[in-house]
Amino acid sequence: MIRKSVQSLTPYTPGEQPKIANLVKLNTNENAYPPSPKVVAALRDFNTSALNLYPDPLCIRIRENLAAQHNCSIDNIFVGNGSDEVLRLATYAWVEDDGAIGYFSPSYSLYPVLADIRDVKHVTCALPNIGELTNSLQALKGQTLPDLFFIANPNAPTSTQFSKNEMQTFCANYSGVVFIDEAYVSFAAEDCVELACSMPNVIVCRTLSKAWSLAGVRLGYAIGPAPLIEALYKIKDSYNVNALTQAVAIAALSDPGWMLINRNKIVATRNRLTQSLRELGWTVADSETNFLWCMPPPPASAESIWTMLRNNNIVVRYFPGPETGTHIRITIGTDEQTNFLLDVLRKEL
Amino acid sequence: MIRKSVQSLTPYTPGEQPKIANLVKLNTNENAYPPSPKVVAALRDFNTSALNLYPDPLCIRIRENLAAQHNCSIDNIFVGNGSDEVLRLATYAWVEDDGAIGYFSPSYSLYPVLADIRDVKHVTCALPNIGELTNSLQALKGQTLPDLFFIANPNAPTSTQFSKNEMQTFCANYSGVVFIDEAYVSFAAEDCVELACSMPNVIVCRTLSKAWSLAGVRLGYAIGPAPLIEALYKIKDSYNVNALTQAVAIAALSDPGWMLINRNKIVATRNRLTQSLRELGWTVADSETNFLWCMPPPPASAESIWTMLRNNNIVVRYFPGPETGTHIRITIGTDEQTNFLLDVLRKEL
Repeated sequence: MIRKSVQSLTPYTPGEQPKIANLVKLNTNENAYPPSPKVVAALRDFNTSALNLYPDPLCIRIRENLAAQHNCSIDNIFVGNGSDEVLRLATYAWVEDDGAIGYFSPSYSLYPVLADIRDVKHVTCALPNIGELTNSLQALKGQTLPDLFFIANPNAPTSTQFSKNEMQTFCANYSGVVFIDEAYVSFAAEDCVELACSMPNVIVCRTLSKAWSLAGVRLGYAIGPAPLIEALYKIKDSYNVNALTQAVAIAALSDPGWMLINRNKIVATRNRLTQSLRELGWTVADSETNFLWCMPPPPASAESIWTMLRNNNIVVRYFPGPETGTHIRITIGTDEQTNFLLDVLRKEL
Repeated sequence: MIRKSVQSLTPYTPGEQPKIANLVKLNTNENAYPPSPKVVAALRDFNTSALNLYPDPLCIRIRENLAAQHNCSIDNIFVGNGSDEVLRLATYAWVEDDGAIGYFSPSYSLYPVLADIRDVKHVTCALPNIGELTNSLQALKGQTLPDLFFIANPNAPTSTQFSKNEMQTFCANYSGVVFIDEAYVSFAAEDCVELACSMPNVIVCRTLSKAWSLAGVRLGYAIGPAPLIEALYKIKDSYNVNALTQAVAIAALSDPGWMLINRNKIVATRNRLTQSLRELGWTVADSETNFLWCMPPPPASAESIWTMLRNNNIVVRYFPGPETGTHIRITIGTDEQTNFLLDVLRKEL
């Protein structure tokens, strides 16, 4: 009774959420700081009696806020149950059954799973170096060009970012939909919203899970051309975003100052940790995110460091395999957590 | 760039949520009463600082509660972002691309839309009368037997319920998955959980939107055989149920007494309204739900009643078309709302 493609599917593995007291949790790129006090107030003032009613199926208030922020129309904004939902709907709205989904490797490990769930062909291509994005078009055009191409920018787990200019050239030369997943963009130097607002085949996806400290509420959104956005609305679950999440998102978005203060603290800590690790002999990519992609100095292996940190109550992310197994991914924590991490590394190595 | 099947799709239309003061809103089968005070307390005590963390992707605490309540294992429970999500995932988990989805007509108007979104064949069959369910097997077996058959039981919009016995016979003689959508079952005399816990092809779906007064938080769940449940988990969005909804659901489920008091009030009001309408010459089905499916006495038409009520600030649901256009669907409101409705009907007819 189970669909064949589902029987053979290997599902996505979310990062561990261990229930250990005093764990230094640097494995799932959550924000080190809590959400805005306006979120606390929004929940305190929420009219719980009205939870018997269905939520706004179209998230109009959130879309009005985001449209003003991004200087576009609400018809250019789709709001989803986390960017997870936006990513999934993209695979159903813009890809034919005999089409394909493309992505670089390594990138966000959910993309291949989404293509498997959608049960269409994958097209992958080695992640280009920064400044060499357009070269990948040659490699891609040798294959069936995918209907939909996911680019995490900044990329996970490698932490670096293609410039807006090279993204623009890539998108202008791509015939399908380019889905720019900007989950981490608040920690970066620039963004591609302008492309989503001006090009017919470009979608930018954002989330409140990272910079806005709201992974718990599930709120993601897409910005893009109205016809592509409309297609997402046609196939989404009727009431995809619950009333509490809508209230929390509106409160958080009304307080960008809080987000920016936390963002600046995290960027400062990131730069300090990068510097300190390099001084300890580590190879660290120039991160435009709230995490580092880094390789310990030989003879230490990434896996041995992962284990050693775990034994010291610090959990980071290790992705085995030839493309990623040399590195670990460390979420930027608080300054206190970062000092503890550095103390452990200095002591143990 | 938009998938052909999505271009031609007519999306589901949720019931209106008009923003009119003092509207008597009897159109979307929401509960007339607010959720448990334990929900208020759960939100008041919620640790908002922890919203920076991802929620439990597997809703373990809710599943433990539901497994205890339904006398099954947590492997028999899937928890989703409203039963909308459960319904959608069913179409992707248990139906092949060349398969079909079946449902009776009239029934929940989302089922044909789900089949269109899934882009597979529909098989429909006229809704059998109560007591004649197994006859429909003959009609179905003349066609391609659908991989998945949705039965809303009690049915919407007709409000009546097939007995557990006849459901059991239907399921035992059906080779695909029978999805029993029990959204309204708390207002009915019996339920089919026992079938979902004992038969290899039966799923029962529940929601907190109706009896539990929580349409706003989006919490639905499926009960069924572990292999079918596992297939849903393989393809769901990673963090499908947000942290606030999880906390609210746990609080609500810990207070079944509150739900039962409201349920009993609604059933009493339903029976009184049924009686009163019949006295006014209406034809009213024997409802096992929190709404009535009813036909006004000639020469009044259902549409004219809908318009007249709307002009009196009462909104009910009218579904045009040959199968449904003779009736209106009236959600059971509070006693005060019901008295007002009856006053308007007595005055205007």
